[in-house]
Amino acid sequence: MAASPAHRVRIGMIGGGEGAFIGEVHRLAAALDGAVELVCGSFSRTADNNQRTGARLGLAAERIHVDWQTLLEDERQRPSEERMEAVVIVTPNHLHVPIAIAALRAGFHVLSEKPAALSLAQARELEQAIESSQRLYGLAHIYLCYPMVWQAREMVREGRLGALRKIHVTYSQGWLGDGAATEGNKQAAWRTDPALAGVSGCMADIGTHAFGLAEFVSGHTVNALCAALGTHVEGRRLDDDGDVLLRTAEGATGVLTASQISTGEENSLEIRIHGELGALEWRQMEPNSLIHRELNAPLRVLRAGIDQPGLCAEAKRRSRLPGGHPEGYLEALANLYRDFAAAVRRGDSGAAEGVPGILQGLRGMAFIEAVIASQKSELKWTPLAADSQA
Amino acid sequence: MAASPAHRVRIGMIGGGEGAFIGEVHRLAAALDGAVELVCGSFSRTADNNQRTGARLGLAAERIHVDWQTLLEDERQRPSEERMEAVVIVTPNHLHVPIAIAALRAGFHVLSEKPAALSLAQARELEQAIESSQRLYGLAHIYLCYPMVWQAREMVREGRLGALRKIHVTYSQGWLGDGAATEGNKQAAWRTDPALAGVSGCMADIGTHAFGLAEFVSGHTVNALCAALGTHVEGRRLDDDGDVLLRTAEGATGVLTASQISTGEENSLEIRIHGELGALEWRQMEPNSLIHRELNAPLRVLRAGIDQPGLCAEAKRRSRLPGGHPEGYLEALANLYRDFAAAVRRGDSGAAEGVPGILQGLRGMAFIEAVIASQKSELKWTPLAADSQA
Amino acid sequence: MAASPAHRVRIGMIGGGEGAFIGEVHRLAAALDGAVELVCGSFSRTADNNQRTGARLGLAAERIHVDWQTLLEDERQRPSEERMEAVVIVTPNHLHVPIAIAALRAGFHVLSEKPAALSLAQARELEQAIESSQRLYGLAHIYLCYPMVWQAREMVREGRLGALRKIHVTYSQGWLGDGAATEGNKQAAWRTDPALAGVSGCMADIGTHAFGLAEFVSGHTVNALCAALGTHVEGRRLDDDGDVLLRTAEGATGVLTASQISTGEENSLEIRIHGELGALEWRQMEPNSLIHRELNAPLRVLRAGIDQPGLCAEAKRRSRLPGGHPEGYLEALANLYRDFAAAVRRGDSGAAEGVPGILQGLRGMAFIEAVIASQKSELKWTPLAADSQA
Amino acid sequence: MAASPAHRVRIGMIGGGEGAFIGEVHRLAAALDGAVELVCGSFSRTADNNQRTGARLGLAAERIHVDWQTLLEDERQRPSEERMEAVVIVTPNHLHVPIAIAALRAGFHVLSEKPAALSLAQARELEQAIESSQRLYGLAHIYLCYPMVWQAREMVREGRLGALRKIHVTYSQGWLGDGAATEGNKQAAWRTDPALAGVSGCMADIGTHAFGLAEFVSGHTVNALCAALGTHVEGRRLDDDGDVLLRTAEGATGVLTASQISTGEENSLEIRIHGELGALEWRQMEPNSLIHRELNAPLRVLRAGIDQPGLCAEAKRRSRLPGGHPEGYLEALANLYRDFAAAVRRGDSGAAEGVPGILQGLRGMAFIEAVIASQKSELKWTPLAADSQA
Repeated sequence: MAASPAHRVRIGMIGGGEGAFIGEVHRLAAALDGAVELVCGSFSRTADNNQRTGARLGLAAERIHVDWQTLLEDERQRPSEERMEAVVIVTPNHLHVPIAIAALRAGFHVLSEKPAALSLAQARELEQAIESSQRLYGLAHIYLCYPMVWQAREMVREGRLGALRKIHVTYSQGWLGDGAATEGNKQAAWRTDPALAGVSGCMADIGTHAFGLAEFVSGHTVNALCAALGTHVEGRRLDDDGDVLLRTAEGATGVLTASQISTGEENSLEIRIHGELGALEWRQMEPNSLIHRELNAPLRVLRAGIDQPGLCAEAKRRSRLPGGHPEGYLEALANLYRDFAAAVRRGDSGAAEGVPGILQGLRGMAFIEAVIASQKSELKWTPLAADSQA
Repeated sequence: MAASPAHRVRIGMIGGGEGAFIGEVHRLAAALDGAVELVCGSFSRTADNNQRTGARLGLAAERIHVDWQTLLEDERQRPSEERMEAVVIVTPNHLHVPIAIAALRAGFHVLSEKPAALSLAQARELEQAIESSQRLYGLAHIYLCYPMVWQAREMVREGRLGALRKIHVTYSQGWLGDGAATEGNKQAAWRTDPALAGVSGCMADIGTHAFGLAEFVSGHTVNALCAALGTHVEGRRLDDDGDVLLRTAEGATGVLTASQISTGEENSLEIRIHGELGALEWRQMEPNSLIHRELNAPLRVLRAGIDQPGLCAEAKRRSRLPGGHPEGYLEALANLYRDFAAAVRRGDSGAAEGVPGILQGLRGMAFIEAVIASQKSELKWTPLAADSQA
Repeated sequence: MAASPAHRVRIGMIGGGEGAFIGEVHRLAAALDGAVELVCGSFSRTADNNQRTGARLGLAAERIHVDWQTLLEDERQRPSEERMEAVVIVTPNHLHVPIAIAALRAGFHVLSEKPAALSLAQARELEQAIESSQRLYGLAHIYLCYPMVWQAREMVREGRLGALRKIHVTYSQGWLGDGAATEGNKQAAWRTDPALAGVSGCMADIGTHAFGLAEFVSGHTVNALCAALGTHVEGRRLDDDGDVLLRTAEGATGVLTASQISTGEENSLEIRIHGELGALEWRQMEPNSLIHRELNAPLRVLRAGIDQPGLCAEAKRRSRLPGGHPEGYLEALANLYRDFAAAVRRGDSGAAEGVPGILQGLRGMAFIEAVIASQKSELKWTPLAADSQA
Repeated sequence: MAASPAHRVRIGMIGGGEGAFIGEVHRLAAALDGAVELVCGSFSRTADNNQRTGARLGLAAERIHVDWQTLLEDERQRPSEERMEAVVIVTPNHLHVPIAIAALRAGFHVLSEKPAALSLAQARELEQAIESSQRLYGLAHIYLCYPMVWQAREMVREGRLGALRKIHVTYSQGWLGDGAATEGNKQAAWRTDPALAGVSGCMADIGTHAFGLAEFVSGHTVNALCAALGTHVEGRRLDDDGDVLLRTAEGATGVLTASQISTGEENSLEIRIHGELGALEWRQMEPNSLIHRELNAPLRVLRAGIDQPGLCAEAKRRSRLPGGHPEGYLEALANLYRDFAAAVRRGDSGAAEGVPGILQGLRGMAFIEAVIASQKSELKWTPLAADSQA
């Protein structure tokens, strides 16, 4: 309700029918600041589901499309004042690139769920499509849109930690740990199916979040890694867990751990970075606090909020409320939508300021491929090319 | 975006222009689930502010009204399919009742910021107006809409704690503690002006939240109290802090503490309830956890989330995401809007199920009056009549 | 083992036989730094228990005495180089003063468990006996010997908090909450028997700890209070819980809460002090951290340890280990023994530097009497004379 | 003071003069329960320091020895009723084995600081000496003596976690991170000197603690690892940090991280173990809590204390106080001394029940050697022989 309907960016959604998780999350978060407005969608291959979802969302019947191709084609032909401006892709992984490229070519901006692609090669193809299109491409690395993540990044940039030495990042979940319980779970099914999810399960689904967070906050580029992946449930074909040693081009080392079979864990994404002069620690499940350790000084806890002392501008503008009024995951995604919509309105192309984009996508794919290569290798270190980093 | 525009409840807002805090909070939260749609408003007595706010929110010029009387009159005459259905009151305290009563009489549902009124007598007048109106009245006791508050209430109801012995509730803020810093702060100004805020400052502003939470979770009725209030900033005319002993009709005792001059505190609302068989502890700044102590068993931590073990239905349906994806203050207020809108759609009157209402309003006013009476009294105990409790 | 046996202060113990709790705690803590050596004792009125305890502690038969009178008489006649120098009193409350006075008159230093006496009058008698005796008197307010409690006190003294506004102190236990479970429990029995414990149960047993901590850290003198006590178990004759409003001579207000029927609580002593410029928060169950809030700055956590930044000398010398090697309750009591023994060796009299003494004792008794008087009064405020404060 | 002097085990100490850290820690902890008595020592090669230390500890001049050889020789010839029974070795690493073997051969029990040896071969030599000697050998893996570590181990043994999947253990310190600050620091000097510390710095000093904890709690045997070590301070010759992937013979995987250059960290040893049915998490800096996650149940927090619900016997008997009276690092070491002394009194040989011993020593050395080999290897996995595990 916060932005004038006249200024809202008109979006369409592909995927996100009933039974899907992340589509509804996008709709909730997108609504928060009112920066966008849903004008059309193709939510499910199942006609019933598609219709019901679109109707529930208040779409006119003619803007609920049977498939994504039809959606793009139909919207392209509408008058500019009602035409969808950007498409949100919340399908299983294998459709991310085909839809994104088609949409860009049809003249639409794209906001895609991650991973950006199924392979690094495919991500490079996408990168080219973005460049040719003069359109925006955003990638839903939601965790990069929390205020205290920006605060951490800014403190690293300012040199508050000195030269970085160590990066430890962990993303721990338990929901795929109980084989029996995940039978019949649609979310579990596609995430563990190579045809839909790609070459990796856990590393693609959440390892890339941890990887992206580590590079984003540290400003470093991982250039070698050593992975030990595992699969813990009978019949599962992709990794559901892994531990990965990291080395960065700038001289830091560390560990990335990601797991979806860690019984009892909810959604525990945590990062600790140690430098010569200080250290930072952030936990997604208590996202409004950032722990700051300094050489020869007591530990400090910086707190999110529009009025909180010690925060940089980027952190403050990603908060809506005074300190002590907790904001969470939906607000983080809403931050992404707000910045994406602003970039659309400004007429920007390529990357939307403040929004993760194809660079994060390329890095994520490079990470997945290096992890899979490392898992197959007997050598300790597998390189991860830096050329995908700007 | 989650509800069909056709089903959204049409609301108008009174108050909430630029420089106001809670109006924008309402707009953000209301947007989250898309259960309501803003169709008109009268945001400020200052014409410029009023116009700018309405325009920014996408309202047509004819539905941005110069004052609340005009708004009610104009909307009443519109065709039913476009007419505002409910009015949200986010003005300073002294206008809550006049607007609410006029709106109810004009046939509109009312959702009011708290306190419900400036006095218990005025709250009773309001109660009568609600009863005569056959309309809904909701009161924005936002903290009562957190999932884990409902979980706590349910566990008390189920007898998990046995007979309750102790209730300790604290609401601690620091923002009014620095006299110099609050000069020129509009929020601070009206909250400390008796003409606008009523007979109490801190107790009315946040003490009532603590009081409402204590009665809501415990199910008990406070029937006597002993207050020690304070004013800590030169020239301030209302209490900015206070400690209050409590006794309930059902036999529990405890303490309510509220402060707006506790340097360094953000928005620390906490409640601890001890019974014969167990205890519960909840902290608003980490709202997704509920600590449960039991006789002869290790402490447990229940967690919010649509998939979390041990939660009652009322707690689950107030979560949107799986465990570990933090939800916060805006989501709590969004829960209130969702339930209020559903009650409007069902055609209910009086109290909206799941939404705090006039009963909380009456209790809050009774609390404020008893606290002020106790502060002036040399006797230890001041009664708080139970007749305002259903 | 740390001090030379030749330099150890020779102590005798009265009370602390098998089945007693605090006597063994004293022996453990006293041993830690080796500042004292047990040379005699009268541990129990039950001859068997007395003998077994003494023998287990390695005492010669002739220094295990049938009663405390015999102990004092016998030790007085021993040659100075083997004679007990100080007596530790760990009996039920009613014997504290009789033994202390007799011991002082017999020329021995005294270290007494708290409360110092059964009444303020009795405590004044004791005060006189101390003054006449030229001997030392220490009172086992153990919680005042934690390093971070001294750190907090020092920060208040230095003016880091500015003028103090609020003092909130809570001491919450659950072990007397289950009537059935405490039957046959010796500890529970005497603590709830007026003949042995005095006029108050919970307030005397743990309320005095909370009170002492509040005055010690704040440096303020409570001069009025308003108490609401309770008794929750059938047949119990003393208070087992209470909430008390406080006012200090220096202008702060606050609340003291003490409870032994708070189901599920272990030993939760917590204090929060707010001043104009900052605030401190300390929790006995995590004693090595001190939370410091400042106006317009992020929260800091000071940490105990011989090498930790920001600590005052008094805090550092009450730590034995580098930060991160947790020290606890026994170490706090060991700090008290270390300071008491050092004062004995220096030949001091009256109060031992760094050790709580008769002043805390007088204040504790004044508090108990005021609380009981307040409980019986219909008036809100009951004065607490300041003349017991130096 | 708790045990009769007549029953105390007579110990001598080698190392631990002024300026040393761990020797004094041993003396403090050993004194707590009074299970041992220091009768002789050779504390420093520097005569002054040696004499001063011994005198301060109350030793007769003839039992303060110029070197460890003299100590062993002299004590051997004393009458059995005054002769030292066990020797405590708290020297730099390179002397651990020479002294231990000589002491065992001279008929003394040995309690050694860790690491047990400088190499696996040397540890095997020591193992033989223990077997031939019919004496006890204890190794000061202090962290294995915390009550909640035993509780965790017991819960794993009972199958509460099901088959273990993941083991993550971290030991993070910052004190060697500031090169300048560690100049002239004696502790820092020998730990980073290969001649005194052996082939590894950080991994030997604290990595072995983390490794020992992981194997102890899990009951698993690490059989392969992949190490990435680092050295961060100019001129330092040994590792001061490292990350190590682990695989166990029983099928779990995980990561061990140890660092002494993590700015701002105190002594952060943490372990998380995930199994099919549940998970445990323990943090040395808050040692009295153990977090237990279960499939489909809320998280529980088990707490140390003689009266705490849910604890196994081994955990309870390693507590001295009721819950909420924090015990710490010295109490953990005191537990070790208590069990070691009891084994001496029982006349046991080889391993003392409840006390880490040569098995942990062999495993630690095997770990160090494997880590160093892995660091030099280009292959991912380096085996770690299981034959050093019973």
